[in-house]
Amino acid sequence: MAKPRDAVNNLKEYTPGKNPEGQKVVKLASNENSLGASPKALVEIKKRLKNINVYPDQYSRELSSLLATKYNVSDKNLIIGNGSDEIMQMLAAAYLSAGDEVLISRNTFSTYEFVTRLFDANPVFVDLKNYTYDLPGFAKKSGDKTKLIFLCNPNSPTGTMFSGAELDSFMANIPDNYIVVIDEAYAEYVEREDYPDSLKYVREGKNVIVLRTFSKLYGLAGLRVGYGIAKEEIIKYLKMVKLPFGVNRLAVAGAVAALDDKSFIMKSLKNNKEGKEYLYGELGTGNWKLDFQKTEANFIWIDLKQSADQVFLKLMSEGVIIRPLTSFGMPNAIRVTIGLPEQNKKFIAALKKVL
Amino acid sequence: MAKPRDAVNNLKEYTPGKNPEGQKVVKLASNENSLGASPKALVEIKKRLKNINVYPDQYSRELSSLLATKYNVSDKNLIIGNGSDEIMQMLAAAYLSAGDEVLISRNTFSTYEFVTRLFDANPVFVDLKNYTYDLPGFAKKSGDKTKLIFLCNPNSPTGTMFSGAELDSFMANIPDNYIVVIDEAYAEYVEREDYPDSLKYVREGKNVIVLRTFSKLYGLAGLRVGYGIAKEEIIKYLKMVKLPFGVNRLAVAGAVAALDDKSFIMKSLKNNKEGKEYLYGELGTGNWKLDFQKTEANFIWIDLKQSADQVFLKLMSEGVIIRPLTSFGMPNAIRVTIGLPEQNKKFIAALKKVL
Repeated sequence: MAKPRDAVNNLKEYTPGKNPEGQKVVKLASNENSLGASPKALVEIKKRLKNINVYPDQYSRELSSLLATKYNVSDKNLIIGNGSDEIMQMLAAAYLSAGDEVLISRNTFSTYEFVTRLFDANPVFVDLKNYTYDLPGFAKKSGDKTKLIFLCNPNSPTGTMFSGAELDSFMANIPDNYIVVIDEAYAEYVEREDYPDSLKYVREGKNVIVLRTFSKLYGLAGLRVGYGIAKEEIIKYLKMVKLPFGVNRLAVAGAVAALDDKSFIMKSLKNNKEGKEYLYGELGTGNWKLDFQKTEANFIWIDLKQSADQVFLKLMSEGVIIRPLTSFGMPNAIRVTIGLPEQNKKFIAALKKVL
Repeated sequence: MAKPRDAVNNLKEYTPGKNPEGQKVVKLASNENSLGASPKALVEIKKRLKNINVYPDQYSRELSSLLATKYNVSDKNLIIGNGSDEIMQMLAAAYLSAGDEVLISRNTFSTYEFVTRLFDANPVFVDLKNYTYDLPGFAKKSGDKTKLIFLCNPNSPTGTMFSGAELDSFMANIPDNYIVVIDEAYAEYVEREDYPDSLKYVREGKNVIVLRTFSKLYGLAGLRVGYGIAKEEIIKYLKMVKLPFGVNRLAVAGAVAALDDKSFIMKSLKNNKEGKEYLYGELGTGNWKLDFQKTEANFIWIDLKQSADQVFLKLMSEGVIIRPLTSFGMPNAIRVTIGLPEQNKKFIAALKKVL
């Protein structure tokens, strides 16, 4: 037989949200946009269908130019990925060798650990503190072998965030030969005013890359498109390790149009804000034994004080799919996407029934 | 600064076919389907647009089941990739470590070398023989360090193929701890009857993976979908190194429908056969100094006996984009996609003018 690399056996399979099989099942498991996709994106995709026999542009330049303008950077500061997870893989491919260390939080998005192990580096874990990224804890664990630091802000699955001041003091105290990856997949949903302006570090020439996605607010999870913003040198190396045609034509078409779909963006944010308030109200009252975290994202973290896997099954039989956080290292907690009003109500009713 | 891995500096950037900027330019540079995309694919994509806010299935199971039925294998023998180049990268990620050797032909698809270097392995090059893959040459260069062998059949850019008998005798004489990757991106265009039945080796449990794509005959290059067929053990390891959501929903929709679009397939094959005969006729007569190879694919290789880069520029100013093969190590040759009848005529007229 052909022997795989040692690293392969240390990789854990990704545990995705379950997809509904029946029509009436409500899926609140993967933080997709419950309003659907940006309608402008759908129109633009239809317009460009006739060109799908042609290879896409290697660097999705149409989209990267638009994003450069939006963020007031050069398009040499931008890389487009087949989802931002592909950019995480490029970071590992460009920078990690055997023996390098990568700082990763516990109870966060699993792909950070996956790409680290894929390139033979060692994850060094930092615990959450009050369900929030512990930046001083990261600083303490960094050292000579550190190459990448992954920060998820707001964090999935807890929905918590660290502030601009916290990030400033972290950045001031770590050496500049690490690359700090700030995954801001849920940034657009944040309501707190002290959310970091992380692009500031890119403009200052720091080794920081900011990752964003079209999978959440813009409703394009099924098309796969994310982007990274960093100084030219980092982008140059990421382009060197990138397969040429990773991002498909219709993803670029959809993203270009969605970026400009103000009405859909406003509707999505309003729905999220109202859903959040409704859930806070329901979860915060009543006689049940649970805790939850206030969220800066489009989902809410709930500690059920009992096996999440079992509650997951019971909720599914009530027609509601949520994400049990066992694979995130939190076996008593769940993450629930904020849905449409009727979906949120259905979730609360089901939860009341099964708890 | 943050230092990239040593391997990164050995990676060559992919040289894509140039995309036309004007409307009247004919692109015969990337072996796309000149008839466009499968019309059935377009219909199916439109139908499924409303679901693009939902993450795709991790393993594209709908498509892999269909392919399993088509090829009479289990869907455990199938992996779907974001283009077959993503599967090449998975093979490298699963099997290659520093110091391993990978056998690669000269004058072939550049991604084999790219993924080899990305995972710190060493390419060992084998020359073409009469513009064709030299399988005995591969056998001679294989050894203890060999892990992967990449075979492109028919070969891009020469359009030549090796036969089933040649592959049989090669397979009989190499040890079974190498993985033989047979890239059959152009298989559907082959007319010769002695083309290998490479799935035979998969069924026999050999370490072989057969790669195919929807980018060529099915006209879906812009969507990114390819697949690999191998024994369960290999597929299992590839799934372990795969990012979860690489293949987008609309690619799966398009591929599922295109697979069944017999009328488009027949039209495409007929156009290719007729275009090929026309080009043979034109290139084989007249007073020009050139050679060409009979092709089993949807493109034709032409030796111009002069700088291809310069002829490329001249042809472009005549409104025809072809692929100069400098980046393939053949600076005097070009690769020309077989187009629609009027495109082929335009190419021949332009070539006559500039030579």
